Order: sequence, then C-alpha cells, then structure tokens
Amino acid sequence: MLKDHVKGNVPDKDVLKTMIREEEAKLSGSLMKIKEAKLPVMVICEGWGGAGKGSTLGKVINAIDPRFFKLKTYEGTPSDDEKRYPFLYRYILTIPEGGKFTFYDGYWMHEITDAVREGTLSPEEYAKRIESINRTERSLHDNGYLIVKFFFNISRKEQKKRLEELMEDKDTEWRVSKSDLKENSQYDKCLEIYDRYLTDTNRSIAPWYIIDAKESKTAEWQMLGFLNQSIDTALKNKALAVPILQNTFPLVQMPKLSDIPLEGKTLTDEEYKETLDKLKKELRDLHYRLYRKKIPVVIAYEGWDAAGKGGNIKRITGALDPRGYEVHPIASPEPHEKSRHFLWRFWNRIPRTGHIAIFDRTWYGRVMVERLEGFCSENDWQRAYNEINEFEKELSDWGAIIIKFWVQIDKDTQLARFTDRQNTPEKKWKITDEDWRNREKWDLYEDAVNEMIEKTSTEYAKWYILESVDKKYARIKALEIVIDQLKEALDGKRKNK
Amino acid sequence: MLKDHVKGNVPDKDVLKTMIREEEAKLSGSLMKIKEAKLPVMVICEGWGGAGKGSTLGKVINAIDPRFFKLKTYEGTPSDDEKRYPFLYRYILTIPEGGKFTFYDGYWMHEITDAVREGTLSPEEYAKRIESINRTERSLHDNGYLIVKFFFNISRKEQKKRLEELMEDKDTEWRVSKSDLKENSQYDKCLEIYDRYLTDTNRSIAPWYIIDAKESKTAEWQMLGFLNQSIDTALKNKALAVPILQNTFPLVQMPKLSDIPLEGKTLTDEEYKETLDKLKKELRDLHYRLYRKKIPVVIAYEGWDAAGKGGNIKRITGALDPRGYEVHPIASPEPHEKSRHFLWRFWNRIPRTGHIAIFDRTWYGRVMVERLEGFCSENDWQRAYNEINEFEKELSDWGAIIIKFWVQIDKDTQLARFTDRQNTPEKKWKITDEDWRNREKWDLYEDAVNEMIEKTSTEYAKWYILESVDKKYARIKALEIVIDQLKEALDGKRKNK
Repeated sequence: MLKDHVKGNVPDKDVLKTMIREEEAKLSGSLMKIKEAKLPVMVICEGWGGAGKGSTLGKVINAIDPRFFKLKTYEGTPSDDEKRYPFLYRYILTIPEGGKFTFYDGYWMHEITDAVREGTLSPEEYAKRIESINRTERSLHDNGYLIVKFFFNISRKEQKKRLEELMEDKDTEWRVSKSDLKENSQYDKCLEIYDRYLTDTNRSIAPWYIIDAKESKTAEWQMLGFLNQSIDTALKNKALAVPILQNTFPLVQMPKLSDIPLEGKTLTDEEYKETLDKLKKELRDLHYRLYRKKIPVVIAYEGWDAAGKGGNIKRITGALDPRGYEVHPIASPEPHEKSRHFLWRFWNRIPRTGHIAIFDRTWYGRVMVERLEGFCSENDWQRAYNEINEFEKELSDWGAIIIKFWVQIDKDTQLARFTDRQNTPEKKWKITDEDWRNREKWDLYEDAVNEMIEKTSTEYAKWYILESVDKKYARIKALEIVIDQLKEALDGKRKNK
Repeated sequence: MLKDHVKGNVPDKDVLKTMIREEEAKLSGSLMKIKEAKLPVMVICEGWGGAGKGSTLGKVINAIDPRFFKLKTYEGTPSDDEKRYPFLYRYILTIPEGGKFTFYDGYWMHEITDAVREGTLSPEEYAKRIESINRTERSLHDNGYLIVKFFFNISRKEQKKRLEELMEDKDTEWRVSKSDLKENSQYDKCLEIYDRYLTDTNRSIAPWYIIDAKESKTAEWQMLGFLNQSIDTALKNKALAVPILQNTFPLVQMPKLSDIPLEGKTLTDEEYKETLDKLKKELRDLHYRLYRKKIPVVIAYEGWDAAGKGGNIKRITGALDPRGYEVHPIASPEPHEKSRHFLWRFWNRIPRTGHIAIFDRTWYGRVMVERLEGFCSENDWQRAYNEINEFEKELSDWGAIIIKFWVQIDKDTQLARFTDRQNTPEKKWKITDEDWRNREKWDLYEDAVNEMIEKTSTEYAKWYILESVDKKYARIKALEIVIDQLKEALDGKRKNK
C-alpha cells in the first residue's frame, strides 16, 4: 500500500494554517466526549527515519491537555529484561486507560521490519508475528479501543537530504542513527518490507494512514484530520456489539462437572505423607532445571469457594525455590486495571522466562463472576472465550507451559467447610457474606464452568480437574500433573504447538 | 557488630521442631491483625553466599497466605535501564502496601558492599549512601513501615564446605557465582566491610538481626522468632506519634505571598510573542544538550486554582521534543498508591537521566490539601517538610535539576476566571464544586503555602514565584527561569550541592 500511495491535494500555506487551527480546536473539543465515553485511544506513529514523526507528534499533543495522554517512545531493540518476556509484552503494558490517549513514537513495526531487513526473522516467524499483531489489535478494538496508525512517508531523495542536513550540524548530528543511514542506502529494499508490513496489518479495526511528510505543516494537518475523523467514528460506534468469532483452536473433549465421580478419590495419611515428600523433592529438582533452561510456567487455579485452592497451591510452592516463583492472588480489579482491557492486569503478571507464576483465581473471572454478576456485557463474556484462547496461545507460542486446574467439590462438602470456617475463630476471616451469596447461585455457576471448560480446553492449555473432597488427594494429583508437564517440556517430548 | 556476634543457645532438635511450629502458628495468626492495622512489613534478608537465606525464606513464607506477601529478589547489579535512575529507585518501587509483607532476598546492602570490596565506591560516596539509606528507612518507619533486617551468618570454613558441595553436583553447580567464591577467598576483608555496613545501618527503627545459619532449623526458628517479636512491637506502637525533626538543609529566605507585588507584572502581546519565540528556540536547544549529557530535570508546579498552571506548562512543553519529557498531572491517589508511603507515587514518576518530568501538582499536596482536608494526621504533615526536603535532596545528589513554581494570583483574579469558566461552555469542565469550596478556604491555604515555601525552599530546590495575573508574564518568567537553570547546569557553573 505504501508503493501505490498517491499524494493528496494540499491547500496553500495560509489556508493550511487556518485548517490546522480548526483541527486542533476540534481535537481539544472532543476530549471531554472521549472522557465521558471512556474511550481509550492508541495513536501509533511509524515512518522513515528523519521523516519528522517526532516533531509532528510534539505539535499534535500540544493541543491536548496533559491529563488526557501519555507519550511512549520505543527506541530500538528490547532490553535484556524485556527479552525475558513475549514479544508483545512491553507494548501491551502501555495501553491507555479508558478516556485517555497513548501516543506511540514507534511501536512494534520496526522491531519486526528491522529483523526482516537483517535476515534474522524467518518467513514463518514473520507470519506468526503478523498473526499475533492482528489478533491483539482486534482484541483491543473489540474491547473498545480506538487504534489509529500513521506512517510518515518521504522519498529516498528527501530522506537523504534531511539526514545530511542533520549530520552537518554538530548539535543535531547525534540524532542520525546507523540504522537511519542503512535505511536510506537500502531504501528500495526497505520500501518493499514496509509496504508488505503495512498491507499485512491494514485492517479496518486498526487502519494505516500514510502521511505525506515532505512538508511538515501538511503532515500535521493530515495527521490531525485523520485522527479527528477516527475519533468521530469511534464515538458513534461506542454502543455497537462485536461479532463473536468461531473457535479456531484445537480443543480437547472434556466431561461435564456432574459426570466427574468424586467418591473414592481419597488417600490415607500415610500414603499422602510419603507421596508428598517424594513428589516435592522431584518438583524441586525440576524447578532448578527449568530455571536454567529458561522455560516459563503459568499455573492457573479456579474452583469452588472452600474447594481447597490455597492449601493446594501451598503444596506446590512448598517445593519451590522462592526466587523462582510468584503467587498472584486475584481479587476484583483496581480502578486503573478495570479501565483497561480485561487481560491487561494478567499480562502485567506473566512470569519471566525460567519463572513460575501461580494464579489463585484468574482471567477466567470474565466468564464466571463477571458474567454472572453482570460486571461485563453479554457480548463481552461471549467474546472472552476466544480472547482467552488467543492470550494463552500467545504464551504457549512463546514457550510457556500452561496448566489450568479446576478444584472440584460437591455442594455438601462446601456447606460443611463454610460452617467449619464460620465456627472456627482463626478461619473466620476466610468466609464472607459474598461466599454465601455465591453459593446460592451454584447451579448458574456450574453451567458457566461447564461452558468455560468446554470452550477453553485447548490442546496447548488444557483444564485439569482436581477432585478435592479429600484435599490430600487433590494436592497429590496437582503435584503429579505439574511434574508430568514439566518433565514433558524438559525432556523435549513436547509436541511442537 | 558481626565480628562480636555471640551465638545464642539452641534447643535440641525435637524441641526446636515444636518451637518452629509454634512460631509459624503465631505468624499466621497475626496476619489478620496486620491487615486490620494496615501495617506494611519489609523483611530484608542479606548474608554470606551459600548461607541459606533463600531456603530459609522459602520456609518462612510458606507459613503465610499468598494474599499477604510478595517476594522480591535482587540479584547482582542494576540493569542498564535501572542505572538511569537514582540508586534507591529500584528498591523503593517494591515497598509493600499497608497490611502486606514484602520479603527481600537481598536488598541494597550487597550493591554497596560489593562496590567497596572492588574499590569502586569512594569513602565519600559510601558515607553518602549510608546517609541516604538511614534517611529512607527512617522515613519509611515514620510513615508506619515495619522494617526487619536479617543477616545470615556462617563461618569461612562452613561457607567453603557448602560452596564445594554445591559445585560437586552438576545440578547445583550453577548456583555458585564467581562473587560467592571471591567472597570466600576474601572472607576476612568482607567480614570487615559487612561488619561496618551493619553497624552503620543498625538503627532501632530498622534493626539488624544476625542469624546463626550453620544449622538450617536454627536459622528458621531464629528468623521466625525475631519477626514475630518485631510484629508484636509494631502493632502495639501503631498509634504513637513520631518526633518532628529539625531542618538540617540550607534554606533560602523567601517572602510571604502577601508581600509579593502583582501589579505591573504584565507584557504587551508583541513583547510576549517575540520573547516567547526566542525563548522556545533557546529551550529546544538546551533540551537536546541535556538529553545528551544525561541530566535529569524535575519541574514542579503548584498554585491557586485557575492561576494558569496548565497554560504555563504548555509553553514549556511546546518547546520540547516529545521523546524527552513527560507531564504528570497529579490527582488524588489511587488505592494502591494511597496504601503506600506518600512519596511512593512520585518516586514512581521521576524522570530517567536526560529526561524532563513536569508535575502539574506535586508531593506538596501533603502539606496543602491533605493537611487542610484532614487526609493525613497533623503529625504526618508536620513531618512532611523534612521528608520532602530529603526526597528532593536525594534527587539533587543524583544530579537532577529541581525547579519548583508557585503560580500566584490574587483572590479577585481567581473569581473572575472561575466566573469565566462557569459561563464558557468549552471551559466548564475545568471548574468543579470543589474549586469553589477550596476558594472559601483561601486564607487557610495561604497560611499553609507560606509555611510550605518557607520550610522547603532549600538551596538545591528553590521555589520560584510566578506572578500570573497576566498569564503571559508568568509564562515568560517560567521559561526564563527554566532556561537559566539548565544553562547553569550545562555550562558547569552549578555549585556542587
């Protein structure tokens, strides 16, 4: 799309000045509407080195009150610490809250196109990244984000002139990077790569706008115009429902909760103690090995209130080196979490390579409590199965082992445990009115859990049921599953997913 | 204190086991009290390599529900990105919220003692760091933090044995670092350095406890015991007031607000426009220079409602490259900010070297709105002058330029602007009921501002008054002050502070 780009007509200078002022006023004027609609806006600027995206950005944001935006600069390659996270991680962390802008001076495009130019990204990897990006942008859009992408375009000749001018002045010389010079000397090759990238990621949910950046006032006017137009459209579409996509991930057949026998799943104290010690030792050794092999692990716990999640987690962590794991207890989101994409606070908590992250309750809250309590719309939770499968696919492709546990008990067992908590002073803090209220909705929850397990048991992130009427049985089963999964990954017997 | 340490008596094995269980129960039992008292607890573990602090920590935290703690590991030196912030920065970011623990496997001690051992930290720098640390710990303590510090002690012989054992096994070999081996070969030298460090930082507000780590059960029992004891004391002392320390920083004499003439501080439109363009160009060039020289800049704005802070800030940012600055509009704190030391959310927003951070309202909220609205206790805001001077000293010592503006108008001007906002549709969002309420407290605020300016105009972080009845005048004055300060720093004429 870059190669075929035809420049638009440009008004003359004085008219341009007035038009810029009008667009600026329009942008300022829409801030309160954006705030009221809680619309989060991502404005991404990419382009040729020296095309002036930085200075144009500087002018555009000056029309916006600082309370409404952040500007994020992505220069060059990720740091060593960022490299210990998935490709998307450092970008996703900076998405705006509802009602605010994030302006990006550079985003993930150049991390990819530079690698293509240098030949360090294979066509398969390139295709995978494009897929990740398109999915992520779609998921952001579906959750209410406006994404506007600009490419600042100049000709080879114009770029050469600008870089030379910058280099002539001792005060601006440092602003020209080696990469800029390389880009200019390989302009045609880069044009091919950029053109393809723009085409591959040009979707109506996050379209590209090519800015004619030869003349800086024109660039400013075009950017403001496209931005205002996009905001108008987004504000009008705020209430629209989003299509529910069909699942495209390989699913594993799972039983309904009511079909899972709970009787007889018990262990004697001796069996328990003996096995526990053995498994803990085994897990400890595996933990060191995966730390050294830099494999990240995500263990997700969901289950009925009082099913025994906490004690179960403790038996896992008891075997682990505290430097290599973190437990994330998930409560209702804080305001700054709630005003972003619902998966943001989990992206924020994914483990570094070689580390284990254990979630005590998870992103599945979206299709359980948020669904049943009406904390999100029906359209939201219906979309969430696919959004979650995509999220987990991203982690799995990165190399993470994902283990999901549903801790299962029956209604009578829950009642007995609730009563015990209520009557035991040291345990009383563990039981709240909300627990009793949730219990009344047992059947609704059971339906939701069945649907969740059916729709999100992917081959790369299966659900495992832990029968926990006898907590000892559930703990041993969890340890065995974790050990099996780690072994499979460490001994290289894992299928390529 | 390490050299003179005398080991305590150790009960025999079976008794020890029971005593550990008792201490664990006590620790679990105090979690709800800690939560109710909103007590934040920092548990810091340092020690000889191979002394087993990691594994002891692992056992201790297993007695605590994951909802109540985080564990933070500091391995080795700061990353390149962390190096662009003050020494304290990466540690302060991880302080716990009220009601929770952070356990530290390593903290700032080894960053300092390693540098002393390697001869890369001069005695003056060492003394400065010790002062920073003692101040920071005191400030945390004064704001309700419990800090307990453990040093895991083993003999040279014992350490040697352990390192050798780890190295013999291929699975554990990697756990022995070069630094560990160096520590053992220079044991006596390290002992001197550690002994001095422990002595220099042993204060009753954050005391050291030396753990006899030869036998792991003993270590666990000692750590649990000291921790429980410290928690008991802290819970009892929760309501105590904290001494208000006398100012020890060099202050600049400042006028009272009522003595500052506002008449005649005006500019014609022509004077304004001409000077503005000239100064903006000058500031733009200085910005590039300080970016390259990696000097960080903090610009703090306070002032009456409708005094013109926003427009003033815009004239500064209009001259800056957007990649090199950030504006932080400060509203009331979010829950996760409110439950930490009041300066935490500002530490979180300090600029990287070479960058400019502009604060639209600041940490001075503590001694203005929080004081007058009763959001903190009298003891809290009275202590805050010194705490703020210390905070700014830390930034100044790091090399930051700190410029603080009070934007000044009279009561009549405010009324005229409020009325204008109320009557102009596009401006109406800028005026709230709260603004009118604050206006009624003008005299109380004026007293508070006078006291604030008097007590926090240090030589290294002066207040500047911007007379803003004519906003143009105030904008030009702000630009001139910023330019002067940057020039002074860049041309090396700044006094060493």
